[in-house]
Amino acid sequence: MYLPHETWPDLDEYVANESLAVVPLGSTEQHGPHLPEGTDYLIARALARAATDRTGHLCTPPVTVGVSPHHRQFHGTTWVDPPVFRDYVENLSRNLTYHGIDRIVYVNAHGGNVVHLREVGRRLRDDGTAFAVEWMWDESIPDLIDEHFERPGPHGGPKETAMIMHVARDLVREGRLDAARDGGRPEFEYGEMDVHGARVVYDAIENSDNGVFGDQTDATPAVGERLFEAATDQLVALLEWLDDQPFDALLPEPHVDPQPGSGR
Amino acid sequence: MYLPHETWPDLDEYVANESLAVVPLGSTEQHGPHLPEGTDYLIARALARAATDRTGHLCTPPVTVGVSPHHRQFHGTTWVDPPVFRDYVENLSRNLTYHGIDRIVYVNAHGGNVVHLREVGRRLRDDGTAFAVEWMWDESIPDLIDEHFERPGPHGGPKETAMIMHVARDLVREGRLDAARDGGRPEFEYGEMDVHGARVVYDAIENSDNGVFGDQTDATPAVGERLFEAATDQLVALLEWLDDQPFDALLPEPHVDPQPGSGR
Amino acid sequence: MYLPHETWPDLDEYVANESLAVVPLGSTEQHGPHLPEGTDYLIARALARAATDRTGHLCTPPVTVGVSPHHRQFHGTTWVDPPVFRDYVENLSRNLTYHGIDRIVYVNAHGGNVVHLREVGRRLRDDGTAFAVEWMWDESIPDLIDEHFERPGPHGGPKETAMIMHVARDLVREGRLDAARDGGRPEFEYGEMDVHGARVVYDAIENSDNGVFGDQTDATPAVGERLFEAATDQLVALLEWLDDQPFDALLPEPHVDPQPGSGR
Amino acid sequence: MYLPHETWPDLDEYVANESLAVVPLGSTEQHGPHLPEGTDYLIARALARAATDRTGHLCTPPVTVGVSPHHRQFHGTTWVDPPVFRDYVENLSRNLTYHGIDRIVYVNAHGGNVVHLREVGRRLRDDGTAFAVEWMWDESIPDLIDEHFERPGPHGGPKETAMIMHVARDLVREGRLDAARDGGRPEFEYGEMDVHGARVVYDAIENSDNGVFGDQTDATPAVGERLFEAATDQLVALLEWLDDQPFDALLPEPHVDPQPGSGR
Amino acid sequence: MYLPHETWPDLDEYVANESLAVVPLGSTEQHGPHLPEGTDYLIARALARAATDRTGHLCTPPVTVGVSPHHRQFHGTTWVDPPVFRDYVENLSRNLTYHGIDRIVYVNAHGGNVVHLREVGRRLRDDGTAFAVEWMWDESIPDLIDEHFERPGPHGGPKETAMIMHVARDLVREGRLDAARDGGRPEFEYGEMDVHGARVVYDAIENSDNGVFGDQTDATPAVGERLFEAATDQLVALLEWLDDQPFDALLPEPHVDPQPGSGR
Amino acid sequence: MYLPHETWPDLDEYVANESLAVVPLGSTEQHGPHLPEGTDYLIARALARAATDRTGHLCTPPVTVGVSPHHRQFHGTTWVDPPVFRDYVENLSRNLTYHGIDRIVYVNAHGGNVVHLREVGRRLRDDGTAFAVEWMWDESIPDLIDEHFERPGPHGGPKETAMIMHVARDLVREGRLDAARDGGRPEFEYGEMDVHGARVVYDAIENSDNGVFGDQTDATPAVGERLFEAATDQLVALLEWLDDQPFDALLPEPHVDPQPGSGR
Repeated sequence: MYLPHETWPDLDEYVANESLAVVPLGSTEQHGPHLPEGTDYLIARALARAATDRTGHLCTPPVTVGVSPHHRQFHGTTWVDPPVFRDYVENLSRNLTYHGIDRIVYVNAHGGNVVHLREVGRRLRDDGTAFAVEWMWDESIPDLIDEHFERPGPHGGPKETAMIMHVARDLVREGRLDAARDGGRPEFEYGEMDVHGARVVYDAIENSDNGVFGDQTDATPAVGERLFEAATDQLVALLEWLDDQPFDALLPEPHVDPQPGSGR
Repeated sequence: MYLPHETWPDLDEYVANESLAVVPLGSTEQHGPHLPEGTDYLIARALARAATDRTGHLCTPPVTVGVSPHHRQFHGTTWVDPPVFRDYVENLSRNLTYHGIDRIVYVNAHGGNVVHLREVGRRLRDDGTAFAVEWMWDESIPDLIDEHFERPGPHGGPKETAMIMHVARDLVREGRLDAARDGGRPEFEYGEMDVHGARVVYDAIENSDNGVFGDQTDATPAVGERLFEAATDQLVALLEWLDDQPFDALLPEPHVDPQPGSGR
Repeated sequence: MYLPHETWPDLDEYVANESLAVVPLGSTEQHGPHLPEGTDYLIARALARAATDRTGHLCTPPVTVGVSPHHRQFHGTTWVDPPVFRDYVENLSRNLTYHGIDRIVYVNAHGGNVVHLREVGRRLRDDGTAFAVEWMWDESIPDLIDEHFERPGPHGGPKETAMIMHVARDLVREGRLDAARDGGRPEFEYGEMDVHGARVVYDAIENSDNGVFGDQTDATPAVGERLFEAATDQLVALLEWLDDQPFDALLPEPHVDPQPGSGR
Repeated sequence: MYLPHETWPDLDEYVANESLAVVPLGSTEQHGPHLPEGTDYLIARALARAATDRTGHLCTPPVTVGVSPHHRQFHGTTWVDPPVFRDYVENLSRNLTYHGIDRIVYVNAHGGNVVHLREVGRRLRDDGTAFAVEWMWDESIPDLIDEHFERPGPHGGPKETAMIMHVARDLVREGRLDAARDGGRPEFEYGEMDVHGARVVYDAIENSDNGVFGDQTDATPAVGERLFEAATDQLVALLEWLDDQPFDALLPEPHVDPQPGSGR
Repeated sequence: MYLPHETWPDLDEYVANESLAVVPLGSTEQHGPHLPEGTDYLIARALARAATDRTGHLCTPPVTVGVSPHHRQFHGTTWVDPPVFRDYVENLSRNLTYHGIDRIVYVNAHGGNVVHLREVGRRLRDDGTAFAVEWMWDESIPDLIDEHFERPGPHGGPKETAMIMHVARDLVREGRLDAARDGGRPEFEYGEMDVHGARVVYDAIENSDNGVFGDQTDATPAVGERLFEAATDQLVALLEWLDDQPFDALLPEPHVDPQPGSGR
Repeated sequence: MYLPHETWPDLDEYVANESLAVVPLGSTEQHGPHLPEGTDYLIARALARAATDRTGHLCTPPVTVGVSPHHRQFHGTTWVDPPVFRDYVENLSRNLTYHGIDRIVYVNAHGGNVVHLREVGRRLRDDGTAFAVEWMWDESIPDLIDEHFERPGPHGGPKETAMIMHVARDLVREGRLDAARDGGRPEFEYGEMDVHGARVVYDAIENSDNGVFGDQTDATPAVGERLFEAATDQLVALLEWLDDQPFDALLPEPHVDPQPGSGR
């Protein structure tokens, strides 16, 4: 159920019986000369809607702006700073629990959001409010990605290109795929820029002139569809798994024995 | 230019020459049995995109969740609390100025956001960062609204119904228009529930059993189109006016004379 | 009972039996060439004391500085910014509940405080701490105001002039009433400065050279007394009404049925 | 000049030529069975007005509620918590600088405010905004106090009793002076309750059943007048001293030599 | 038990049976030409470890940086600002309670931390979380200090010099004791720099050219040992006293009678 | 130069000529039955001191408590929550810049601190205050670690065991190495517990009964020494590299061309 399209009375059954919500999150940031700035939230929204269409779970509208200061040198990158992002997602999530939600999947398509969503998840869990878990689509299908792409790259590469080809094909500037690769950094491994073990790079522009990492010339709509379906399968499986857990099983483990004060 | 659909190199000209951005904001909250929960942001996004298509200004993706605690008793209402909302919009706006933006129009379709956007606007203006102004679509065309509707109501009424009929017709449950009216509060004036001058009502549910105010049976797609076009005209005019202002003219007036310390 | 004048043992009965407190709030800001900067808190304090003298409720000392950045260009305007004001009033209010207070009337005489007091009221109510309600004196007697003044104006006009004539006559510079009107903006309606539906004005000085709105030459002490008595009557009635409410009736309505999770 | 009684045009000369403001601060808290809860702010306001009447400096209205959680067990004690108090005073002070104020005297009559006002003073000074200094009336005339009172006590004792006898005599319940002493703690020295060097007492009630410390039976209006005049003299001298300082002399000393980076 | 040296299983008994923790706190700040910048935390740690070695209580590692902006003009002084310091200590303390700790002694050797630790102590106590108390070593043995030193001084003087001679002798530059005294302010009393009762001095450098107060030429390792042992005795006694208190005896007193609402 | 052991005049040359500071950070948290809770900060401090002894750079005392909520179920784990940790380190770092420091290396030995130190580094860099970089010792010598250990594990494993054997041998409970391995999780790879791509594990206890990961029976003091020396070499090289950079080279890249507003 896509919440923005539902009316409130139509949620009667859901509120009475269900406790899971899906929140898509992405970013609005440069994705090279060939991909639109909304790439991440477009992917997240499409996956979240596809999976919840199959499971019947509630899906909120997307959080369209995320933690993207590392792309800010490129025109149009829009972002909120980490403390603001965390508080926004936390607050939104806490308020969802008013309707009986006690577990949330953050369907995320922006790497810069990951650690912050994990932190929010801990906040919600440690005080017993809800179990929230971050899910990054490409981490659910690593083998498939390796199978299709020689140089996947972490940003603006063939993974995202193929996905947008599938979910919003007219937003891909297909004539610029070669330029995207050649003006960027086709080969890239995290850590290769480290200095004696320290990550001294903060911004994408330090590593790539056009903001692109990877070689997107391998991307096709068909591959995009395959990735999309595979990731959706994974997300559906996650939602079903999470739905099946008793809430207590999702809460933190207790303190190890002996319990504090037990001997007093 | 709809930012999420643009690539960063395509913004070259804009960044070099322009200084105005449009940010649509709405809410995800109950809108009665006949309208979808996303009503407000769907309207805001549609208006913002239509106007910026005409003027060529930059339009960000919408902020889809707003300040809606007063609708929370109804299933699915999602909200962030005011301090979080203000900090989120402020931070997003400040970061936009990195790209040379110094004036922003908040295209708003949710009454609960108004005072908070005004407060954010003051923060940005008083320290000279940017001039940001809240624009609420229905306040730009009061006469037209009065002409078409006998009982417009402030929430879930014929104004919003007609607008959604125009921008997302399949999301209106047209068979429930009578029920929406009869189960809600067709006649409503702010202040009528006040007790000796004090507004003692905090939540919509205190005034309306189904969350609806106004009589939406007057709404038609044709009226919606007329409202939409008229409001878009107003917004276009506002964008053009704002674009024409020198930045200094948008900043606060100086202290009155004599200037502080001028005699020392 | 005016708290700053009471000793603690004399509050024995009150603490044991009562649960209502009155907090007067105003501002210290320009009120034109004819009225003192403390106008708002002087009015609020006078009304709060008069009403609580009649009902026997507890009245705290006034909050003398409020949210007045929109008057800051004029000498002497003193203010706190909205987040600080809200936190101050909220914290003060929460601490009052330590003594058994569970309902508060903010007797307010400054328009700039209204939305912030409403926000604080929601915070206190939504977590079940207390029911706090903002009461703005002139909104309790709109007909009487219309009856006496042709051009009442929102700030520094005949309403406030007449009130100060009644409560602190020697603080009105009566010889400047004409100048106050002529150097200011005798006729004013909210919205008249809007640009295509957007309120683009942030500060009083943009609309009025001397900070005055309305025509105060209609003000007299006798009219002031009449307004004062009428507003006091309204406030007394509000206090009695609020005192009569069971606390549960003041708390938020529950979630609509079905209750969240009720079907699980 | 008492700001709440002044009109803005009458501050022309002051704003042009002067840079000092006086802010009275106190509390609303129990002061035993014989003194009113507003004792502290009534004293602070009276001293601040008397001194500024003599020097011609600007005096704001009082901050009537301070940091008094240590008196909260007694009926009516009203307080704000330290972070809120500090932020309120800091914000109010920063905003005063808009009018050219760069030095502030906090005329304080509540011990619980002292460390917080010092902290605010540092904030304002360390970033070069203003030089603000806390002044506690009884610390300016220690010899005179010792001369008049055998057991002065830190709270509700003869110092405050005499002062209120002078500034608001009808608010002293003179028939309860013996009871105030006998039901409280006539003899008291800070530190006497310490446990092996640790101050383990947090609240006044732990030391005094009625909240009183000292023996107020020595207080008379004549003594009160003498204290008041002497303290006013001290405050006048402080204002004159402060007024005479060049602003640079009030700012922090620079880093010691060699200056950071001077050798690079 | 020195927590950083213990393994978790070795704390079994402690967690089951005990509820007291000791947290040493100091600073890293100039202590004149003869003492190391870590003086305060080295003293605090040594005392805390010595006392807990005797009582068997748990001792955390030291907080090595404190509130020292007043020494910042001297090379190397490192500090955190008061709000950050308070939040850090409060948070650390709250988290300790997860292991059953409900009473904490802050073993402190830096005067600049005192009021902040008291504020944190109140926060923890007023909401019933824990009873935390600040203990400053030299305030536990005032007579002994007076016996040994003619001019003890508050900072960098003979007290600290003797202590460091005892706990880390090679860190004292003994050849500079005369210079330390002569380049600083051997005689000093709080208040002597006050102007008409106002403390107008914010930084140590305003009073002492080399940051030293007092005459350290009386310091010897033997005196240091005596101070150290005496202070340790006091701390041991405090820990034993605190350990013996029932938790309820450490919580705030209730509101005085009549209880709020008791008559309703 | 180890700051806590230095006197301020001895820093004259450093302050005049140098701009780099080293801040060691670790944690106080369970490290299995064989290692002390202070393991991380003991390692960080030892490495930081060894490297700065060689380079002559300034080293502050360690931050001994870090972000360790994921180990809290085990006795004695002490932690601060992420927002508090970040603000503490940021504030401490900003204040260091008062002495001319414009580059900082966070010598870190706790994985839970990494993302937070990166976030702090960005805050400091993006506003031009300083360039701060996180350095995690084991990430500087991955090959050496692989060479020595078959099952290195991320926490409490042979890496940390060998290091503590080298820097504080008596704190290793060598008789418990087998038990540490067998009661924990000798084999562990990040991601192996993921559910359909989502990391659903928040706390160490969910993966390891005794909090240990890896097989520490390969650890010896000799290996520890080798790791320590190798990591120190890396750190020395990093400090030298960083010291050599012009400050401008460490600041963020500018916005890509065309510059915002360049065409206006």
